[in-house]
Amino acid sequence: MSISSFHPPKRTLMGPGPSDVPQRILDALGRPTLGHLDPLFIGMMDELKSLLKYAFKTENELTLPISAPGSAGMEACFVNLVEPGDKVVVCINGVFGKRMLENVTRTGGVPVIVDSEWGKPVDVAKVEAALQANPDAKVLAFVHAETSTGAVSDAKALCALAKQHGCLSLVDAVTSLGGVELRVDEWGIDAIYSGSQKCLSCTPGLSPVSFSHAAVEAIKARKHPVQSWFLDMNLILGYWGEGGKRAYHHTAPVNALYGLHESLVILQDEGLENAWARHAAMHRCLAAGLESLGIRFVVDADSRLPQLNSVYIPDGVDDAGVRQQLLEKHNLEIGAGLGDFAGKVWRIGLMGYSARMENIRLLLSALAEAMQAQGYDCDAAAAIAAAEAAQG
Amino acid sequence: MSISSFHPPKRTLMGPGPSDVPQRILDALGRPTLGHLDPLFIGMMDELKSLLKYAFKTENELTLPISAPGSAGMEACFVNLVEPGDKVVVCINGVFGKRMLENVTRTGGVPVIVDSEWGKPVDVAKVEAALQANPDAKVLAFVHAETSTGAVSDAKALCALAKQHGCLSLVDAVTSLGGVELRVDEWGIDAIYSGSQKCLSCTPGLSPVSFSHAAVEAIKARKHPVQSWFLDMNLILGYWGEGGKRAYHHTAPVNALYGLHESLVILQDEGLENAWARHAAMHRCLAAGLESLGIRFVVDADSRLPQLNSVYIPDGVDDAGVRQQLLEKHNLEIGAGLGDFAGKVWRIGLMGYSARMENIRLLLSALAEAMQAQGYDCDAAAAIAAAEAAQG
Repeated sequence: MSISSFHPPKRTLMGPGPSDVPQRILDALGRPTLGHLDPLFIGMMDELKSLLKYAFKTENELTLPISAPGSAGMEACFVNLVEPGDKVVVCINGVFGKRMLENVTRTGGVPVIVDSEWGKPVDVAKVEAALQANPDAKVLAFVHAETSTGAVSDAKALCALAKQHGCLSLVDAVTSLGGVELRVDEWGIDAIYSGSQKCLSCTPGLSPVSFSHAAVEAIKARKHPVQSWFLDMNLILGYWGEGGKRAYHHTAPVNALYGLHESLVILQDEGLENAWARHAAMHRCLAAGLESLGIRFVVDADSRLPQLNSVYIPDGVDDAGVRQQLLEKHNLEIGAGLGDFAGKVWRIGLMGYSARMENIRLLLSALAEAMQAQGYDCDAAAAIAAAEAAQG
Repeated sequence: MSISSFHPPKRTLMGPGPSDVPQRILDALGRPTLGHLDPLFIGMMDELKSLLKYAFKTENELTLPISAPGSAGMEACFVNLVEPGDKVVVCINGVFGKRMLENVTRTGGVPVIVDSEWGKPVDVAKVEAALQANPDAKVLAFVHAETSTGAVSDAKALCALAKQHGCLSLVDAVTSLGGVELRVDEWGIDAIYSGSQKCLSCTPGLSPVSFSHAAVEAIKARKHPVQSWFLDMNLILGYWGEGGKRAYHHTAPVNALYGLHESLVILQDEGLENAWARHAAMHRCLAAGLESLGIRFVVDADSRLPQLNSVYIPDGVDDAGVRQQLLEKHNLEIGAGLGDFAGKVWRIGLMGYSARMENIRLLLSALAEAMQAQGYDCDAAAAIAAAEAAQG
């Protein structure tokens, strides 16, 4: 066996994540490794917490990145908030709602499922009915931005309902953080998790989380120990918490955290609201271009995520063939459909650093070419002109 | 709030991990991010599995890196192998044995504790007695290389005992992999986890694991679902497994895996047995130098880990003061004592890329200087000469 160093090509990433990573972040990853208890590293961690509070629009003390991908962030929220026998209203309108359900049952919780159609937001009226029918529910869990469909749900309304019914709200913001309006404190979100590799444009592997005062009280009042040692927030807080001694829990992923820090500095420098506006503007351009190519969106315009565009694959066009041509000829990645949407839709990401005009031009021209090669009739130049016109 | 990019200094890392990271690995971390289902990335994953099999000396199909630090690798082994009510013989001779016990109880297992003195190997006779007294035990769990004390246990003998008593063996190799003799197949280890940031000299954040055929059968025969969705090997295998479709489970930490791949290419190029020999040789040099300074080891010579040297802090020498001077004046990190050893010992790492003569010279001269500043009588030049003489 003789294996050589790996040298990946430079791809343009316009799938559901990871998104394009700016060179500044790649450079940060390669900086010298510090010890995980080094005072300089701990200073960096404090900055990281402040930057995450900014991104989440929260003053929650317990705001930090879990040392593992978004799925582990999801699990961290469930294993800390849900005890055996606790009733959890869980909303399903795509793959990640289903994953939440898996987490509820594996923590011994009792799920109350609210199903909504894939491609639509979570049905607020159905949730209200479920909460009325289950006054003993402890947690309301839903996905803010469903990455499998591209639909955004009304997190503000859902969290208000949770509060009204004495429930803690538990929110998946993996794809929403940094890409669309999200206000943890103002909306009263109690537990939230995200991912580094979506609208923050960092590399995958970290999951920012935040817990409200009420969530922390619930964790402290638990009757059973948290089933996961690695994700027990009581222990993690001993390392990330302020004021006190930094107690060793696990070894932090030092260089990965440099990358997240850099991605959040970039967000701070752009301004959170400006980043939201940029995602919306680039979505309008992409949508105009795709519609010019005769491509239809899965999600209605009023509940569409700007950063994750699910579109129907035109009749007669081969899903895998198009994606392969984009990848091999143009180093361009778009996403396949997931779950019920496999083979039927493409997912085109405009997340973070991917949300820029040069990516949209490349996508429209390369996609038109690949579809034309399969006999589909469309006009790349007109699509690009439509996209530019939408820029205003 | 205006936070700037973080620029860490270059430290020499001679603590209990992370160890010094070679520039080749830092460079690999900053290469362009690929999608986690990109065919080129999947090819890299296959290489990574082969390289890990080489490092573990195993043909186990289920050999891969968990997308989180060593603590999560530990948890992956316990949540997959232990079901509620299962009896687990757990050996404790330091901090990480205690952590194993936490994992047993949180998975609903019934622990049988075998205590051994801190700084000594796991007592094989006591383990044999425990296995005889508990014929219904399902798992024998122990730490091969206790990072909190620097003692190595006889993994070969312990695994043979496990087999003899019909138990699965579950081994912590966080600090041993790549640093001392470790033979997964030959010794009959059933489940093993390690860390990227010790003798592999990669950055922290990944945990290589391997499961034997018997362990996989036990996982498949479970009556209860694995309590962790993120660490459920049945699901992880769908993404990392060979032959079949690469099913999406979680988003792999792409760039971190580039780093681990590079670290294993370096190990392959040096040769595993050569790496073991280098750690042993560098330990002899360090030990000769430290003894020349009048410093005593915690662990007896015959059960000392070459890569983790626990030594008593001389009387009258201030623990924190010395470590602070090493860090601030020489950018040199050594480790504090952990658990029962806090304030009493230093832990000096010679892991992976840290195990080289220039690091030993720096350590001996800087440590002698710092202790002299506190009135301790010692001779740096003599210590360095002793270290060089031991090189032979």
